[in-house]
Amino acid sequence: MTQPSDKALVPFVSVDHMMRLIHHIGIEPMLRGLADYIEADFKRWELFDKTPRVASHSAEGVIELMPTSDGEVYGFKYVNGHPKNTAEGLQTVTAFGLLADVGNGYPVLLSEMTILTAMRTAATSAMVAKHLAPKGADTMAMIGNGAQSEFQTLAMKAICGLKSVRLYDTDPAATAKCAANLAGHGLNVVACDTPEDAIQGAQILTTCTADKQYATILTDNMVGAGVHINAIGGDCPGKTELAPAILHRSDIFVEFPPQTRIEGEIQQLAPDHPVTELWQVITGAAAGRTSDRQITLFDSVGFAIEDFSALRYLRDQLPATGLYHPLDLLADPDDPRDLFGMVQRAAS
Amino acid sequence: MTQPSDKALVPFVSVDHMMRLIHHIGIEPMLRGLADYIEADFKRWELFDKTPRVASHSAEGVIELMPTSDGEVYGFKYVNGHPKNTAEGLQTVTAFGLLADVGNGYPVLLSEMTILTAMRTAATSAMVAKHLAPKGADTMAMIGNGAQSEFQTLAMKAICGLKSVRLYDTDPAATAKCAANLAGHGLNVVACDTPEDAIQGAQILTTCTADKQYATILTDNMVGAGVHINAIGGDCPGKTELAPAILHRSDIFVEFPPQTRIEGEIQQLAPDHPVTELWQVITGAAAGRTSDRQITLFDSVGFAIEDFSALRYLRDQLPATGLYHPLDLLADPDDPRDLFGMVQRAAS
Repeated sequence: MTQPSDKALVPFVSVDHMMRLIHHIGIEPMLRGLADYIEADFKRWELFDKTPRVASHSAEGVIELMPTSDGEVYGFKYVNGHPKNTAEGLQTVTAFGLLADVGNGYPVLLSEMTILTAMRTAATSAMVAKHLAPKGADTMAMIGNGAQSEFQTLAMKAICGLKSVRLYDTDPAATAKCAANLAGHGLNVVACDTPEDAIQGAQILTTCTADKQYATILTDNMVGAGVHINAIGGDCPGKTELAPAILHRSDIFVEFPPQTRIEGEIQQLAPDHPVTELWQVITGAAAGRTSDRQITLFDSVGFAIEDFSALRYLRDQLPATGLYHPLDLLADPDDPRDLFGMVQRAAS
Repeated sequence: MTQPSDKALVPFVSVDHMMRLIHHIGIEPMLRGLADYIEADFKRWELFDKTPRVASHSAEGVIELMPTSDGEVYGFKYVNGHPKNTAEGLQTVTAFGLLADVGNGYPVLLSEMTILTAMRTAATSAMVAKHLAPKGADTMAMIGNGAQSEFQTLAMKAICGLKSVRLYDTDPAATAKCAANLAGHGLNVVACDTPEDAIQGAQILTTCTADKQYATILTDNMVGAGVHINAIGGDCPGKTELAPAILHRSDIFVEFPPQTRIEGEIQQLAPDHPVTELWQVITGAAAGRTSDRQITLFDSVGFAIEDFSALRYLRDQLPATGLYHPLDLLADPDDPRDLFGMVQRAAS
C-alpha cells in the first residue's frame, strides 16, 4: 500500500484533542482568544460570503449546514438540534466543522465542534455583552442550566469581569450540576428557586433553554430598565424564550437579520421591526448602548462566521500543540488524472 | 482519559479503506451494486428533500455542499471543482460525505468521496444508458480521458455490456494512461487521434472534459442519428461541452431540472426548453427512447441523491468487511447536560 501524500491528509481535531487543547491553553484564555478572533471577523463582516444556513427540518429536529467564506478560506459547520435527545441520553446539539482553501478547494482542517460550538457561542455572547452591557455589570442571571450554561458564565467572567452568577432551571438537578461545575472558578455562584429570584440584582440576563416551542422564560414584568439580555435559546422557527412585550421595550441587536428574523426571538415581531447589526456596533458605524435605562437585547441565533472564526483560532493553535492527527480523507494520486491507476495499484 | 461511548464514534472510511473495499468487492460488481442503489432511489425520487446544491464560487473554482434526506437518513457531500488544480498536481474534484440519523441528528458514517464520486458518477451514467441507449449498443466514444474516464468505461461494461471503447483526449498522454489502465479488463480499447475518429461506430458518446468555459467538444456535424450522449463535464455555470445545435436535435434527460438549468448543457437553451426527468423514465411515468433514429442526451451534473445512494450502499458493506475505523467526532457526555463536566474531568 502506498502512503498518501501530505496533501491527502487533513488535520483532524477529535473530541479528545479538543478537551486536551482547552486544558493546555486554559478555558478562560481560550474563551478570550476565541472572542478576539470572532470580534476581528465581525470587523470585516462585509467581505464574508453570507448565506442563511441550509436546514433540513423533521418532526424530531433539524440538521443544518452553515457555510461561509472570506474569499481565501472557506468554512462550514454541520450541526443538529434535537430537543428530545436529552431524554434519550444524547446531546441536543452535536456538531463538526471544516476549513478549506478557496484557491484549490482542498480541506485543511476537520474538527469536532460540539464542544467548540459551546465555546464560540459563549465567547460571542461575552464579546457582545462587552459592547452592550451596562458599565460595571458584574452579576448575571443564568436561566437554563444545561450544557451551555457553564461556558456562558465563564466567558462572561473572562471577557466582561463577571463576579456573580445566579442560576435557575426548571430542573433543580441541572442547577446543582451547574453550580458544582462552577465551584472553584473564582465566581460567587447562587442557586435560585425561581426565575424572579435569579434576576435579582443582575445586570445581564442570559436565557438558554431548549424547548422547541414558543415559551416565555422571561415575562415582561420581570425585566427592569438598564439590563442587557443575552437570549441564546431562541434559535429556530417556533422556538422563542421572551415575551413579545420585552422585545418592544428593548433595543435589539442581531448577527445576520435575514437569519434572525426566521429563527430568533424577533420571529415574534413584524418583519420590518428595527434591529441593529452587531458588526456595525463593533466597527463604530452604529450606536450600541446609549443610556443607563436602556434594555439591550442580543437575539443570538449563531452565525456561520462565528464558527469560521472559531475554526480559524483552532487552526492557529495546532502547529504549537500538535493536538490533532492526520486523516486520510482525500484521494491524491501522483498524477491527478490517474485516480483509477491509484486505485488499481492499491491492490498489490 | 475516559473513553468515548459508542454513540460518539462515527465509522470513517478513509481513502485507503475505500480502495481496499473496491478490491474486496471487485470494481465491476461494486459499480453494479451502486447502480442498483441509485436506481432504487430514483424510483422513490419524490419523497426526497431536494435542495439545489449550496455553492461558494471563486475565481479559481467552486466549493459545494449537496444535502438531501429521505426522511429517515440525511446525507450530504462536500465537493470542490477547481479546473486549474491538475496543472498544480492536485485533483480537480475532491469530496467527502456523511450520513446522519434524521431522528437524533447524530452522524452515522463519514467517508472519503473522491473515489466514491467517480464510482457513483459512472454507475449513474451507465444506469441511465441502460434505459436510454439504443438496443445492442456496445461501442462508446470516450472524449476526455481524465480521472473519470476508466470508471465511466468499466461501468458501461458492467451495466450495459459495452465491448469497445474509443478514446480521445487533447492530450495524447491522457489517452495513453487511460488505455493502459483499461488493459486486461476485457474490453477492446482503441486510442484515437481525433474526436471524429473516436465517434466512428459508437452508439454511446461520453464527454468528460474539465474546462471551465463554454467549450465545444462535440460539434453538430459529428453527431449522427440514433446515438446516446452521456454529457458529464458540463456541470457548472459557464462550463459546457456540446454545440447548442446538438441540444436542439436531442431529447434531453436530466436529474433535477432547477439545478441542471443552471449548471448543465441546457444552460445554453431557453429556460423553458422541454426536458424529461430521469426518475420518471425509470418509474415508467415518462417515455425514454422511442425510436432508433432519436438522439438521447443525459445532461449529467450530479445530484445529491446519487451521493446519498452511494453512501447508503457503502454503509451496508461495512459490517461484513470491517473496512472503516471509529472516529472520535462527537462529544457524548454521560449526562447530556453536562458537556462542561466532561471537559473538566478530562483534565485528570
